Amino acid sequence: MSLQKPLVLALASLTLLLSSGVQADGLKPEEMIKYRKAAYNFMAWNMGKIKGNLEGDFNKDAVVNAAGAIAAVANSGMGALYAPGTDKNIGGEKTRLKSEFFKEPQKVREIAMNFNKEATELAKVAAGGDEIAIQSQLAKLGDACKACHERYRAK
Amino acid sequence: MSLQKPLVLALASLTLLLSSGVQADGLKPEEMIKYRKAAYNFMAWNMGKIKGNLEGDFNKDAVVNAAGAIAAVANSGMGALYAPGTDKNIGGEKTRLKSEFFKEPQKVREIAMNFNKEATELAKVAAGGDEIAIQSQLAKLGDACKACHERYRAK
Repeated sequence: MSLQKPLVLALASLTLLLSSGVQADGLKPEEMIKYRKAAYNFMAWNMGKIKGNLEGDFNKDAVVNAAGAIAAVANSGMGALYAPGTDKNIGGEKTRLKSEFFKEPQKVREIAMNFNKEATELAKVAAGGDEIAIQSQLAKLGDACKACHERYRAK
Repeated sequence: MSLQKPLVLALASLTLLLSSGVQADGLKPEEMIKYRKAAYNFMAWNMGKIKGNLEGDFNKDAVVNAAGAIAAVANSGMGALYAPGTDKNIGGEKTRLKSEFFKEPQKVREIAMNFNKEATELAKVAAGGDEIAIQSQLAKLGDACKACHERYRAK
């Protein structure tokens, strides 16, 4: 079969790449951990800003900006930062990712897509400027975060 | 003077707030350090993605996505994460920010505004899809990063 040889070669290259500790997109496992933690911390800051606006003086521009930043991060292809093996501390980078993450790709995908959906929706709702609606959507996004934390993040 | 009393009270409140270690927007110094480092690390990942696309197979959608994420972070109001005192390691968070940062507000403002301008421009140039133009604008953004690193980041 003419299609099998290239596939075998490609798999061999991939195995070599992975075993050398360098991932397909050139990132080391410790860089993946660092970057994904950075993304979550940055989103946490922006969720905090929105919360602060809902609890104190509401500034629509600030909320739109923060929600837009969250949506941009959520949709930045973070899945690429979860290569097998990145559930272990490495190169000075610590992670709380449980190994279950790699055993349930379908569930992970579902949780990740829901997170992206709620983040994208928050940006839309923020543009509307309705505080009650924003509060409600922020809570939905928080639930989407928790769904992953509860299942795949160690205490 | 009717205007002076509220001002004095406001300044007194602000002093109290700052001296208690809680900043005006509710963040502790260590949180500011954590969040701004997160923002820079997240942007570094995305700059790396663009670089990878320019050096390897060019995927315009991926570049537009990464450039948009960088612009969103650059314009997310990171100035709020640089309260006085955040040039010192605190609460387990390390920073390389030099104290000169707080002595040259005009220069800092100029460097920060240039960074925002180049990041915003990169998102626009990315949308055009011209690899040479993107390469050139990515270099300008890199220079804008370096301007701050060389002046305000310890080796």
